[in-house]
Amino acid sequence: MLGRQLAQLKRGIHFVAPEAKWKKPVRVSITGAAGNIGYAVAFRVANGEMLGPDQPVILHLIDLPFAEEKLRGLRMELDDCAFPLLHGIVTTSDQSVGFKDTNFNLLIGSKPRGPGMERADLLKDNGKIFVDTGKAINDHSARDVKTLVVGNPANTNCLIAAHYAKDLPRENFHAMTRLDHDRGLSQLAAKLGVKTTAIEKFCVWGNHSSTMYPDTHHTLVGGKQIHSTLGAEWINKDFIPVVQQRGAAIIKARGLSSAASAGNAAISHVRDWVTGTNGTWTSFSVPTDGSYGVPKGLIFSFPVTVANGKYSIVQGLTITPEAQERINTTTNELTEERRAVEGLLN
Amino acid sequence: MLGRQLAQLKRGIHFVAPEAKWKKPVRVSITGAAGNIGYAVAFRVANGEMLGPDQPVILHLIDLPFAEEKLRGLRMELDDCAFPLLHGIVTTSDQSVGFKDTNFNLLIGSKPRGPGMERADLLKDNGKIFVDTGKAINDHSARDVKTLVVGNPANTNCLIAAHYAKDLPRENFHAMTRLDHDRGLSQLAAKLGVKTTAIEKFCVWGNHSSTMYPDTHHTLVGGKQIHSTLGAEWINKDFIPVVQQRGAAIIKARGLSSAASAGNAAISHVRDWVTGTNGTWTSFSVPTDGSYGVPKGLIFSFPVTVANGKYSIVQGLTITPEAQERINTTTNELTEERRAVEGLLN
Repeated sequence: MLGRQLAQLKRGIHFVAPEAKWKKPVRVSITGAAGNIGYAVAFRVANGEMLGPDQPVILHLIDLPFAEEKLRGLRMELDDCAFPLLHGIVTTSDQSVGFKDTNFNLLIGSKPRGPGMERADLLKDNGKIFVDTGKAINDHSARDVKTLVVGNPANTNCLIAAHYAKDLPRENFHAMTRLDHDRGLSQLAAKLGVKTTAIEKFCVWGNHSSTMYPDTHHTLVGGKQIHSTLGAEWINKDFIPVVQQRGAAIIKARGLSSAASAGNAAISHVRDWVTGTNGTWTSFSVPTDGSYGVPKGLIFSFPVTVANGKYSIVQGLTITPEAQERINTTTNELTEERRAVEGLLN
Repeated sequence: MLGRQLAQLKRGIHFVAPEAKWKKPVRVSITGAAGNIGYAVAFRVANGEMLGPDQPVILHLIDLPFAEEKLRGLRMELDDCAFPLLHGIVTTSDQSVGFKDTNFNLLIGSKPRGPGMERADLLKDNGKIFVDTGKAINDHSARDVKTLVVGNPANTNCLIAAHYAKDLPRENFHAMTRLDHDRGLSQLAAKLGVKTTAIEKFCVWGNHSSTMYPDTHHTLVGGKQIHSTLGAEWINKDFIPVVQQRGAAIIKARGLSSAASAGNAAISHVRDWVTGTNGTWTSFSVPTDGSYGVPKGLIFSFPVTVANGKYSIVQGLTITPEAQERINTTTNELTEERRAVEGLLN
């Protein structure tokens, strides 16, 4: 319609603002994009908060066919923000399109637990979803794609996806315990009257579930141990239960599950994975390698540091008998979860 | 409970991480904080996206008493993000608390139009809210507070709030047309096959309503005029109606009105107000000063540039008769809106 004049104009533009001024865009998939966590994540990723202010992104927004109209609305709102870093949007319910050449996958979508549903059924129903997702990632994503599973039961969903992405490095499949980690930091900061940034060497062990173990044995504030200062009573009767049951408390207050805070944790996890933690600890749920006696073949939250895009599980920590007991509890739960889906792992 | 040991610990912390390393926090109020736009804005403000990565903030989350439990949930989720820049949260339904010493006010809450409600009633019902808000800001906010009205009818709500904040500089009361501005940029970028950042000198005139005038007469891409290239037919039959009616199209697709994109526009408006636009244009709805023949005493969207925290309406533009007609239409609407609420302006 605009013809030759527009073509000339485009050449002129190209000359003035050459593509070379931008880094090559990276592709970020978001499953369950039409849901509340997806909505909380997409705009922030598009604004460079996950991958930095000089990294253009192409968003791959994936959801089930029934959510097509909502995805279209999400795309319209993203367009309406005129984000300089958002260099493209793909919306689809087809995983072969959704994961095509992606560099990061945020697997947020999962089937929620319905009324009267057994946990074993929840594991199996989600497991089936993550079989297909793992295969699609294996077949279509970039060979060095980094995948973060947020959808619950996140650790076991991640285990299944990693199993089926057999051509890809297993250590690039993580489940999210960053929200639990940040919840723990926030509770400690409030108790101690300090900022969260003043707290070092806190971590969450195990499963993203109510068996997780938020551990203050190694935690420092101002270079000093705080575990004995806080005291066993507060830690065991207040701190640990509050962190473990925070998700339910949020649902009670909001009438909806955590969305923006979960999205923020996903962004923080990936940002730290890419840019590193500069020696400080965070908590990643990653494939077990035998560290701390946790059996291989699980996805388990450990204290980690990150440098050059690679995490390292913090080694050599002294584990007290009491801490070991809590680590065993969450290990046992994950082992049982794996058993519940073992039919899917062949 | 922790006693002397904790007190000693705190002194130790203070020594290691002195408060002096932080800038003084600024206070940002958000009205309608329990709503969807509030939810989209709060986390991003807390993460430094509005005021920068070195500016701590204290959020004042304001909503009606019935939303108290939702505000509590919002506060819990904000805590759970462990944002380093979030140095405090106030939640309240009392405006004298909510606006106390605030440096920025994001007035997002307003009464929506109910079924069968006349526009005049909508103006009056919201007007009453903004009488009280203007008085509370006048009595409690910082003397240089910057206020942005997002809640509709935004321009006339802003007019009323500014009227009642009689001790404060009138030019610090703005209504938001940035979402319309960014929607226009996005439509132009899609049409021309360029990035939104390649487009200069686009603006929106008038009221944040379907009479707004998105104006491409002065717009450049790659230093070249695009108005005649785009052609009158596309501009008048496609571009202008799409931008004017975009809000309704979003509601149709999402089943909900624009939230994250509106929140993003609010953040962008304030960020540009504070950090400046480096010579580029944006659109602010500001108190009229006679520029372009628009009568004084309205809040009207103009092309502006911003430097050192002060906006300047772009002067000296040639307005074609056709553009003047559209500017007159939106001026007339705002004049009628003012007439509908004149009983509140004495």
